[in-house]
Amino acid sequence: MAEENKNKRTEISELGEFGLIDRLTGDIKTHQASTVKGVGDDAAVIDGGSGYILVTKDLLLENIHFDLTYYPLKHLGYKAITVNLSDIYAMNGTPRQVIVGIGLSNRFPLEAVEELYRGMKLACDKYKVDLVGGDTTSSRQGLMLSVTAIGDVEKEKVVYRGTAEEKELVCVSGDLGAAYAGLLILEREKAEFTANPNMQPDLEGFDYILQRQLKPEARPDIIKMLDELKIMPTAMIDISDGLASEIKHICKQSNLGCTVYEDKIPIDEQTYDTARSFNMDPTMYALNGGEDYELLFTIKQDDYEKIKSINDVSVIGYMTEKNAGINLITKSGPVVEIKAQGWDHMK
Amino acid sequence: MAEENKNKRTEISELGEFGLIDRLTGDIKTHQASTVKGVGDDAAVIDGGSGYILVTKDLLLENIHFDLTYYPLKHLGYKAITVNLSDIYAMNGTPRQVIVGIGLSNRFPLEAVEELYRGMKLACDKYKVDLVGGDTTSSRQGLMLSVTAIGDVEKEKVVYRGTAEEKELVCVSGDLGAAYAGLLILEREKAEFTANPNMQPDLEGFDYILQRQLKPEARPDIIKMLDELKIMPTAMIDISDGLASEIKHICKQSNLGCTVYEDKIPIDEQTYDTARSFNMDPTMYALNGGEDYELLFTIKQDDYEKIKSINDVSVIGYMTEKNAGINLITKSGPVVEIKAQGWDHMK
Repeated sequence: MAEENKNKRTEISELGEFGLIDRLTGDIKTHQASTVKGVGDDAAVIDGGSGYILVTKDLLLENIHFDLTYYPLKHLGYKAITVNLSDIYAMNGTPRQVIVGIGLSNRFPLEAVEELYRGMKLACDKYKVDLVGGDTTSSRQGLMLSVTAIGDVEKEKVVYRGTAEEKELVCVSGDLGAAYAGLLILEREKAEFTANPNMQPDLEGFDYILQRQLKPEARPDIIKMLDELKIMPTAMIDISDGLASEIKHICKQSNLGCTVYEDKIPIDEQTYDTARSFNMDPTMYALNGGEDYELLFTIKQDDYEKIKSINDVSVIGYMTEKNAGINLITKSGPVVEIKAQGWDHMK
Repeated sequence: MAEENKNKRTEISELGEFGLIDRLTGDIKTHQASTVKGVGDDAAVIDGGSGYILVTKDLLLENIHFDLTYYPLKHLGYKAITVNLSDIYAMNGTPRQVIVGIGLSNRFPLEAVEELYRGMKLACDKYKVDLVGGDTTSSRQGLMLSVTAIGDVEKEKVVYRGTAEEKELVCVSGDLGAAYAGLLILEREKAEFTANPNMQPDLEGFDYILQRQLKPEARPDIIKMLDELKIMPTAMIDISDGLASEIKHICKQSNLGCTVYEDKIPIDEQTYDTARSFNMDPTMYALNGGEDYELLFTIKQDDYEKIKSINDVSVIGYMTEKNAGINLITKSGPVVEIKAQGWDHMK
């Protein structure tokens, strides 16, 4: 039996990223009284005495998360910071520091690393966080970035994923699917350039979706507005893997279902037109495109009048009991189940 | 001029790891009042109100930091945790949590990742730290680990690298050079196995140095003993890159020189014999081998009587004024300058 197990080979793709994490971390026991929340939210929550400390980490690996053929290093540095800050905001917290790990092969000269750092510092300055340390090492293959963001939040203000309640409203900031639309444009131009190296890339008219892909921003403005309006989100997550995947996290961890209206999902005109030009459904970009770094959150129904005053937030549906499932009421009428298809690096 | 700069290519190997870090982080400005100490010590120091929070990160990349031909995954997981905890102890702190980033190619099945996690959990249990989160993603090439350790320390007990004073004693825990000796044995057996795959590896009699390489431990026991004896180290660093490199950090940041006695450097018999069998100088293993994860620290002369009672600590020299340089008084008499040669990943 032991022998049999020893020789067993289970492909990680069979489990997917979240299945793998469940499998690996399901039996973890904690030792420290200060560990408030471990694996399973946007950031770990540590009791710092007067408040909670938030810590989160994201890896960005070359040719998995970015393609340097069209990704400027300065933008990449910027993005490496903002995607981590986004996780701190998603806990309703304020990021304060970042620590940066970089592995780089000898194909990168100093000037390239300086360009990467320039982007990281730009993001740090914009979001008022401090770069306080890290580890720099050579790598055999390409570029890898590992950023850790550290933040804090008042104890009574921390917002988790699993605390939504039935009938609460589902809200999302900004618009969705644009980063994915931008990626498709960049991939298309790369393919054309590969076929004909004399071609000039045609990126005219795609500014917004390209910026969403290449230089994403986090949403501290939303956190600030919610606070000013005294709206306390009941559950929150940032949208890195696409709306479908994130809403499923909130539903699963809150032990609920939800109903989303397709016509309420915010999609920018450039995203819409790009999807159509590829003969694809714009809603699919929003559901499964990912990398939006917008905030998805639930609020109490009583806060509806207040949330209406925020221009950049859309109410897209409501939480239901678990057995009702996770459903999309389509523009044409039929109700379909929302499935997370997109952006599973393990598949 | 701008054009000229744009086309300039400076190899990172010209700067080395520490030169690169200085270059990239020299101009960093901080925004947050809670940032106490940024780049340049074993861990970043953040004001958590009642105490200091310590955060550190180390990357471990396949074929740079480890060779899976002879490195068992469980040991690798264990080591990934302990080398990070070592940085927290080197600030005189207590590690509390770790966050783990893993990038893995599809050559690794679930069973391999479980083995890696088994090692990480074993270390977490031994050192009573909690694994509270992370990021798992696929990679194009091999295995990469990025571990962040979080700890704390009372404000008046934090120990930096740059606070040693003249005439203070230089101390080191455990013994040095063993991990490097173990590495050379493993490399030798790998070479022989490559030449003749029917060969069985001959690791008999090398238990100690192999364990030092494959399953290094951090030194909370030393921190505890110093505390119990009421010895407050005046400066401290952990030995990851070799004694020579670490003593230079303490000297440079304290603006001092130092004198080390070769015959006082603690070297285990197995390390000594291995070095001799390779016709190498055991002292070179201690100075430049690295990966010892012992603590190098300075204490006031008045604490000499107390430190003598700790079995596992050696007093190896004393701090001098800067102009005296960093010197080794050799067993045979002549004084030589200590140069850091070993373990610069960037060279």
